[in-house]
Amino acid sequence: MLKVAICGASGYAGAELLRILSGHPLVEVATVTSEKSQGMSPVALFPQLTAYAGLVFEPLEAEALLKKADLFFLALPHKTSQPAVALFHKEGKKVIDLSADFRLKDAAVYEEWYKTPHYHRGLLKTAVYGLPELHRARIKKARLIANPGCYPTSAILGIYPALKNGLAGAESIIIDSKSGTSGAGRQSDARYSFCEVNEDFSAYAIGSHRHTPEIEQEISLAAKKPVKVSFTPHLLPVNRGILTTIYLSAAKGLTTEKALSVYRKAYQGEPFVRVLNAGELPHLKFVRGTNRCDIGLVADARTGRLIVVTAIDNLVKGAAGQAVHNMNLMMGYPEETGLGALAVAP
Amino acid sequence: MLKVAICGASGYAGAELLRILSGHPLVEVATVTSEKSQGMSPVALFPQLTAYAGLVFEPLEAEALLKKADLFFLALPHKTSQPAVALFHKEGKKVIDLSADFRLKDAAVYEEWYKTPHYHRGLLKTAVYGLPELHRARIKKARLIANPGCYPTSAILGIYPALKNGLAGAESIIIDSKSGTSGAGRQSDARYSFCEVNEDFSAYAIGSHRHTPEIEQEISLAAKKPVKVSFTPHLLPVNRGILTTIYLSAAKGLTTEKALSVYRKAYQGEPFVRVLNAGELPHLKFVRGTNRCDIGLVADARTGRLIVVTAIDNLVKGAAGQAVHNMNLMMGYPEETGLGALAVAP
Amino acid sequence: MLKVAICGASGYAGAELLRILSGHPLVEVATVTSEKSQGMSPVALFPQLTAYAGLVFEPLEAEALLKKADLFFLALPHKTSQPAVALFHKEGKKVIDLSADFRLKDAAVYEEWYKTPHYHRGLLKTAVYGLPELHRARIKKARLIANPGCYPTSAILGIYPALKNGLAGAESIIIDSKSGTSGAGRQSDARYSFCEVNEDFSAYAIGSHRHTPEIEQEISLAAKKPVKVSFTPHLLPVNRGILTTIYLSAAKGLTTEKALSVYRKAYQGEPFVRVLNAGELPHLKFVRGTNRCDIGLVADARTGRLIVVTAIDNLVKGAAGQAVHNMNLMMGYPEETGLGALAVAP
Amino acid sequence: MLKVAICGASGYAGAELLRILSGHPLVEVATVTSEKSQGMSPVALFPQLTAYAGLVFEPLEAEALLKKADLFFLALPHKTSQPAVALFHKEGKKVIDLSADFRLKDAAVYEEWYKTPHYHRGLLKTAVYGLPELHRARIKKARLIANPGCYPTSAILGIYPALKNGLAGAESIIIDSKSGTSGAGRQSDARYSFCEVNEDFSAYAIGSHRHTPEIEQEISLAAKKPVKVSFTPHLLPVNRGILTTIYLSAAKGLTTEKALSVYRKAYQGEPFVRVLNAGELPHLKFVRGTNRCDIGLVADARTGRLIVVTAIDNLVKGAAGQAVHNMNLMMGYPEETGLGALAVAP
Repeated sequence: MLKVAICGASGYAGAELLRILSGHPLVEVATVTSEKSQGMSPVALFPQLTAYAGLVFEPLEAEALLKKADLFFLALPHKTSQPAVALFHKEGKKVIDLSADFRLKDAAVYEEWYKTPHYHRGLLKTAVYGLPELHRARIKKARLIANPGCYPTSAILGIYPALKNGLAGAESIIIDSKSGTSGAGRQSDARYSFCEVNEDFSAYAIGSHRHTPEIEQEISLAAKKPVKVSFTPHLLPVNRGILTTIYLSAAKGLTTEKALSVYRKAYQGEPFVRVLNAGELPHLKFVRGTNRCDIGLVADARTGRLIVVTAIDNLVKGAAGQAVHNMNLMMGYPEETGLGALAVAP
Repeated sequence: MLKVAICGASGYAGAELLRILSGHPLVEVATVTSEKSQGMSPVALFPQLTAYAGLVFEPLEAEALLKKADLFFLALPHKTSQPAVALFHKEGKKVIDLSADFRLKDAAVYEEWYKTPHYHRGLLKTAVYGLPELHRARIKKARLIANPGCYPTSAILGIYPALKNGLAGAESIIIDSKSGTSGAGRQSDARYSFCEVNEDFSAYAIGSHRHTPEIEQEISLAAKKPVKVSFTPHLLPVNRGILTTIYLSAAKGLTTEKALSVYRKAYQGEPFVRVLNAGELPHLKFVRGTNRCDIGLVADARTGRLIVVTAIDNLVKGAAGQAVHNMNLMMGYPEETGLGALAVAP
Repeated sequence: MLKVAICGASGYAGAELLRILSGHPLVEVATVTSEKSQGMSPVALFPQLTAYAGLVFEPLEAEALLKKADLFFLALPHKTSQPAVALFHKEGKKVIDLSADFRLKDAAVYEEWYKTPHYHRGLLKTAVYGLPELHRARIKKARLIANPGCYPTSAILGIYPALKNGLAGAESIIIDSKSGTSGAGRQSDARYSFCEVNEDFSAYAIGSHRHTPEIEQEISLAAKKPVKVSFTPHLLPVNRGILTTIYLSAAKGLTTEKALSVYRKAYQGEPFVRVLNAGELPHLKFVRGTNRCDIGLVADARTGRLIVVTAIDNLVKGAAGQAVHNMNLMMGYPEETGLGALAVAP
Repeated sequence: MLKVAICGASGYAGAELLRILSGHPLVEVATVTSEKSQGMSPVALFPQLTAYAGLVFEPLEAEALLKKADLFFLALPHKTSQPAVALFHKEGKKVIDLSADFRLKDAAVYEEWYKTPHYHRGLLKTAVYGLPELHRARIKKARLIANPGCYPTSAILGIYPALKNGLAGAESIIIDSKSGTSGAGRQSDARYSFCEVNEDFSAYAIGSHRHTPEIEQEISLAAKKPVKVSFTPHLLPVNRGILTTIYLSAAKGLTTEKALSVYRKAYQGEPFVRVLNAGELPHLKFVRGTNRCDIGLVADARTGRLIVVTAIDNLVKGAAGQAVHNMNLMMGYPEETGLGALAVAP
């Protein structure tokens, strides 16, 4: 049994790691940390986590933790994550960081968008961007994974095959994303109270959301040149899920069937991507609670556009599930271990 | 035009007063107070209140306020409300207090349930419990109204005619209430965040909710003896509305039709109570945004029970709308003035 | 009092007309029709419509109806609407048609998108597209109004000032719309059942929605040349509201402030359009139940795009409220009559 | 591998059986039936059921089915279920019937409440009421299980220990239940459409719901005398879950701690019942997607009542999960097999 620690386990991503790992036969959660909930059991904070009555939240004291686990999941706020990642890494531990701190290869870009210095630039090259569909081979050999953001996962998986295979131009890419409210984390801000979110819908952070450079970095690899995107997030009155609608300039004469066949080939054998049939489109409800990304495509000849729609569960494929997938790859476990449950719907 | 002030207008009840009064032809909102939102306009805080661009939240300074208005609505937390009520009342102003501070006639009961001393016991006799269906005549002459709580409004209107007319015994009354989340106020507590309330439902404060003595006080008047009730509130994942299901021991041989005819007579001429037909039951959606209480009845011969179901909008009939109704009565305006809008449904 | 008839009053748009007109001081609803609900009262079907106990749904028999009213609202399915419109119009009545039958000026375009012949092409020129912000002068003199679709209202109001004033190019316009479920009408289709829509979100009819040519027709007037748009509708798990996010190629050097000032000027004096301040974005909750369109703008220098976000209530500004606005204009009533209520929020 | 058939697999209970069994290591779903969806794959109807691409819905032809499976789950409408149960049983198959047809021991009671004759009265004695917490020993030996209704499961588990152990009297039991909308099944009735259920709440079938005699039958066993209950179901705007609030006359001097200790003892060792601590109350979100029943208790000395609150997932512990639990017992598998997943929350 692999012993793992979850640092910052009192947020939604940490709780989701606990939920998923409770069904993983090769892993034992050895310890969990939380400053705020120190001394409490995960079951006291999240009564649905009945499997964890034996654990207690500890403070994040690196020395004490080092002895307890061999792989560390960090679900800490960005910036807070940096020193912890550096320490665990230095001590030879495997680290999967769910924060944004090691996702951007260019420290200057990080500093521009996150408005904070980067203190461990040396590790940026070491860290592997943990999107298995793009970087599987490197993930298998990695010791430090920068687990992708939720919006970027939904956007990159939708755009990558099109740019890679010349189905669409890299100019004028528009990404219109809609996220469930758990994407904002466990919130005590009145703006995220039930009465304010329920029966409402709105856009936010237009042109300025921090996930933008992360999307651009990865799809630039596919395009083999720097790409800029317009990215607009919206807040959905549902608990979970991101649906992203992507508008691309289609190559001349592109048909839906042709696009589908390219996407199917790109994702052939991928355990967690499903390319839907022509005429079908993704729904949040079909991926909720799963690590799957559903993708639907329409090539619109009238306007010369390829429209790609993707759906993921932001807490699973967009966070904890992808982290477990990365762990499975790093450890040489079968990729789907612990990630096989079907969506609970309705 | 009557000049009114709303003290504590940055909560949901205060905002609802502003919404309703914007359509009242005989009233001008002269000033609004809020400590936290001082200096802001109500439109900045509640962008839907487009009619109030000209107002600015002031601090609650009694001297300054006295000159500005002739009737004061107080939507302050209980305890905070006491000195303000006392002052405005002393200076000859009409006061409608939406807090719990002057609802209970017995100061000892107040102190027991609210765990705080009462500093203005002398006013408890002066204050009229502002449920027009029970106390209309006294409300018309009152200068100080204790506006009823939301749960009590839904419970008392459902029970009163039965006890008054001997349809049911006063023993073993059970009140099972379900409230929309706005009943908890504008919250920045994670327990009321969207993700925690959505797709959930739960009971709380069983046997200990502060609205219990208020219900008991008023239905004891109908029963002409002290009555105790079991009251269980629940939190519903909707914005507005209280549906209360009441279980009474029916008088022998009581039929649904007989019960309906007694309730219809009891509420004859009441502009804001609708007794439904046999076979019909109340829905929150049909009262949302209105000052109406819908009532449905079933006499169950098999178990000897009379089951009464009531529905109100907790922010209107359960707070701001009833306050405006009380104002209309105090001022001699037609009762329905400003309260005629139909429910927005779906 | 103007006598009006509502044909097809058993759907959500018809019920919304009844709701709004109950607060209109110059109008009496003389009769309502419904084939399915014949003989029932509107209150039996929609218990919230307490003001209409005296009416009974009649069948749509034109001769009988002609005597009863001077202005006819038609909330019938497209195609069914054509002969009724033609007849009432011929008999000299004022007609406001909420269907799509007379919105498109080119019958061939209608026939292509709606897959049905147009039998009253002669009336297409007569009919005025009832978007007051664009066609107020003609509406005032019209006898036949084609009331705009819900999605087109949200899109056209967002795009018009930009094209008219050269803030953006007419190429590559992308319209990403999200609609509440009442937009699908009163449905007995399992796909619109609570369990299937709740906690879900999806796109539909990509590149093929029938509202596309209507949007293109009207914004082509602003651009003074034919314009094509990519339009993607999505289904939101809320009852009401459309939020539309529009992506335009910005003119060189365009700033948010410059764009805002142009939009403010374009909508100066408009009673039902609110251009928000820089940094503010529309929310469905702030327009729910109202006839207002809120508009927010961001000029994104990094990508050279102008992003416009609009919010309306699909049943009010997107249907019944706009119809009443058109009636007010046709009759010479003050424009806001009956349309002044503030949004019920939360 | 045990081969099972699911008859009537196109409803929510059938789909939930498919979901749960996909994670059961000892079972293979050999065939599924549906008249309406004949020829389709379960994945086409329920795109979340990705594990079942290889199956196709067949018609319910008993001869053909008999060869394919050894255990039959029937998720058919009541009445339709009778002949199928009788046939499979006669042929020596194990049968778990999720309908109401074999739950009531007294055919006359069945006929009175279900308004239809019972054609297989002989099997009523054979059938075991499949509530493992009450009838485990008999279930283990049974060949025909009448799987309990969702409301009865939530009510009986809440009441049984109190009556059995004399904590409360059997008179004047009140059961106030609130169910998520999936309890109504996959519906194409406008009353269950999103717009009608969302933001609404209502009671229905007061005093007349068919689950009443089922509750009375089982708790009469505990009381050792015939018991009558008042049962009121309500419709909640959530997908899943039943929360039931039960009011019992407490034995003299009963405290919450005493009641808890009796309930804890009664459910000691039960894998799917959790008795909460004093001060804690059940939430739907903590049992969603699981086979667990959470129970909270309050003894209210002021009114002499014991209030019990239970929460289950109506599709799991209230239907498919309990059916799988029964299968595990019948087959001698470890009870929790396939039922270990934690709730997906938020």
